[in-house]
Amino acid sequence: MTERIHATYWLETGVDPQQAADVIAGEQSSGTFVALPNETPELKARAGARVERLAVLGHSDTPSLSGGVQAKRYTQCMLELSWPIENFGASLPNLMSTVAGNLFELRQVSGLRLKDLQLPASFAAAYPGPAFGIDGTRRLSGVTRGPLIGTIIKPSVGLSPQETAEQVKQLVAGGIDFIKDDELQGDGPHCPFDERVRAVMRVVNEHAERTGKKVMVAFNLTGELDQMKRRHDLVLAEGGTCVMAVLNSIGLVGLHELRRHSQVPIHAHRAGWGYLTRCEALGWDYAPWQKLWRLAGADHLHVNGLRNKFSEPDDSVIAAARAVLAPATDAAPMRAMPVFSSGQTGLQAAHTYAAIGCADLIHTAGGGIFGHPHGVAAGVEALREAWIAAMEGVPLERHAERSRALAGALEFWK
Amino acid sequence: MTERIHATYWLETGVDPQQAADVIAGEQSSGTFVALPNETPELKARAGARVERLAVLGHSDTPSLSGGVQAKRYTQCMLELSWPIENFGASLPNLMSTVAGNLFELRQVSGLRLKDLQLPASFAAAYPGPAFGIDGTRRLSGVTRGPLIGTIIKPSVGLSPQETAEQVKQLVAGGIDFIKDDELQGDGPHCPFDERVRAVMRVVNEHAERTGKKVMVAFNLTGELDQMKRRHDLVLAEGGTCVMAVLNSIGLVGLHELRRHSQVPIHAHRAGWGYLTRCEALGWDYAPWQKLWRLAGADHLHVNGLRNKFSEPDDSVIAAARAVLAPATDAAPMRAMPVFSSGQTGLQAAHTYAAIGCADLIHTAGGGIFGHPHGVAAGVEALREAWIAAMEGVPLERHAERSRALAGALEFWK
Repeated sequence: MTERIHATYWLETGVDPQQAADVIAGEQSSGTFVALPNETPELKARAGARVERLAVLGHSDTPSLSGGVQAKRYTQCMLELSWPIENFGASLPNLMSTVAGNLFELRQVSGLRLKDLQLPASFAAAYPGPAFGIDGTRRLSGVTRGPLIGTIIKPSVGLSPQETAEQVKQLVAGGIDFIKDDELQGDGPHCPFDERVRAVMRVVNEHAERTGKKVMVAFNLTGELDQMKRRHDLVLAEGGTCVMAVLNSIGLVGLHELRRHSQVPIHAHRAGWGYLTRCEALGWDYAPWQKLWRLAGADHLHVNGLRNKFSEPDDSVIAAARAVLAPATDAAPMRAMPVFSSGQTGLQAAHTYAAIGCADLIHTAGGGIFGHPHGVAAGVEALREAWIAAMEGVPLERHAERSRALAGALEFWK
Repeated sequence: MTERIHATYWLETGVDPQQAADVIAGEQSSGTFVALPNETPELKARAGARVERLAVLGHSDTPSLSGGVQAKRYTQCMLELSWPIENFGASLPNLMSTVAGNLFELRQVSGLRLKDLQLPASFAAAYPGPAFGIDGTRRLSGVTRGPLIGTIIKPSVGLSPQETAEQVKQLVAGGIDFIKDDELQGDGPHCPFDERVRAVMRVVNEHAERTGKKVMVAFNLTGELDQMKRRHDLVLAEGGTCVMAVLNSIGLVGLHELRRHSQVPIHAHRAGWGYLTRCEALGWDYAPWQKLWRLAGADHLHVNGLRNKFSEPDDSVIAAARAVLAPATDAAPMRAMPVFSSGQTGLQAAHTYAAIGCADLIHTAGGGIFGHPHGVAAGVEALREAWIAAMEGVPLERHAERSRALAGALEFWK
């Protein structure tokens, strides 16, 4: 039997839902707006998308999105479509054109959102997925248990390489596991990539020689392909253990090529995710989106954080993190490491641990570390202790009796 | 003086607009959610984004997007920000992270849409833009005046290479200028790319040898980079004059690399554009979006069509086409060719011509050509004659007195 790709959408339509489903299935496979003599029943059976499931969820008087068919009533449904993989082969770019192509603009659609994507085994055969994932990241960072405690260099942009290295110096001395560039930090003349990497890695390497602990630093190498390869090679030559790329800025081909070249984990930033997801009636859920990037090779994937400073609610953050940890296909798990950030402190540790059921993650905090009254080292220790408490099921206040750093943190974490 | 990048947004916010503007400017440059001691006035002056303009447009009682700050009143404004190019250098991927990064998710934002983007000369120096553009496309297709009359192979997917070539045979015999694969047509086992190209180019080359007219066929080579390069090389070896790629499926790095490799024009498809644009309070206008892709090397850019079968209104289509024809930067025009499609016939020619003021475009029709009662050749001729009438300012009915094909078409174009 032929392998099929399955995609599930939340659909709102001003026409009969079955008709809308048929139009979407047609538009995204063998059909067009008018019946064609050579779209034979045989061809349709072979290449047509199939409506696997259509369940009405409710109705409304007004459309979520304008521009579509005018109606008195709009119907919301869950729609599952499937395609034979023979239509285009095991190709992520062509998968993208198919499951997220012209369909969002259809007049029969007043809302459409991709909720889920299930891929057959041949995709796992064509795409190796993360080269390092959770195990590789733990091995390179030396963090065998619990989350990697991390932070982001701030100000986001504007520091010189030396100022950046100074901040890194405080952090590595403070016992941090992971540091990342801000996604806005590229290769500008005030903070050239090469100088930044050399200055930072000098600090990281000195610390590693002295203590045996090599802090993982995700250098943002986002750029054109040759630039990314060259920057990766510099990071590697300087002893670095991670690179970072902004997915929406480089695209699937960019990540796939970087994955082929990279000898360190790829920290994948989702900047721009808001324009893909923030309208509830349009675009993407994180589950199908992150799957494409994991297949293409992302080792770490940003998922925002609980009680974050952005507009995303907690249930969405939890769903995103669970998706990143769930198997990509039945044939190959390809698990990546979720990265929690934005307004994070140890106060979110227990809730985060309970929600995802493991500590295979990177937890980054800024103010939650730097704001500690006893300094950066105490800030790092407090966040780590909060995770120990979470994993042991001990309330923070009780665990703080054993940890001065955590006790100090509880006074300023709010 | 330092060069600056300017981006204009439609913004809706539940907080004071000036505060929202400052938060966005901070988030996308040197700031973060909390004041940092090392974000000095000097650093801010050097690296901070600047609020250039903030004009209130109106108010509403409800937010366009959920998840943000709750308020009694939401303010809509036009916001222009600028950044010093030194923050990241002349890099399209890093430009993307900056002008369309984390800002859409901010709690202070209940609506945000990128409306315009102005780039300094150094971007034009770093990116060569379309290698062929309008002039190169006219030269290769032999169409010196008026639009390229084109069509799309349908059914979108499911035909064999031989069936595809049969359809191409009818079209080239009918005098067509341009043919494209559907964006869903990749390299599946039922219609492998190589076999399709060989079968189609045999027909195109035979016709060219006999008549001197080589029809331009845009073969969809969308895929991973090595695949795209290999497929391009095959197209070139078989005498082809165009390749097609789906922009959202390959990403900026993919297009930039294809541009570096390609020796024929790149026909850029915008499948997926709907999820970037259809929510009026979120995402992208076409003007800033298409500019990124033109800099990266797109020669032809899809703009939908007037009175199209999708949900896009005519004024949006016209704005898109004008944007594709407008100079990319003051330093370099980099004009690309707009591609009109979807429900197109000769009836839209005059309106299209009047709206964009020139005929430097590709006009593709399916049913508008194949439906002609006298056959495909008459369908092609009728569309071409409709454009001659448009360019000469002659009403279609009067021009039809001189053209039997046009007269026949007027009976079925509705």
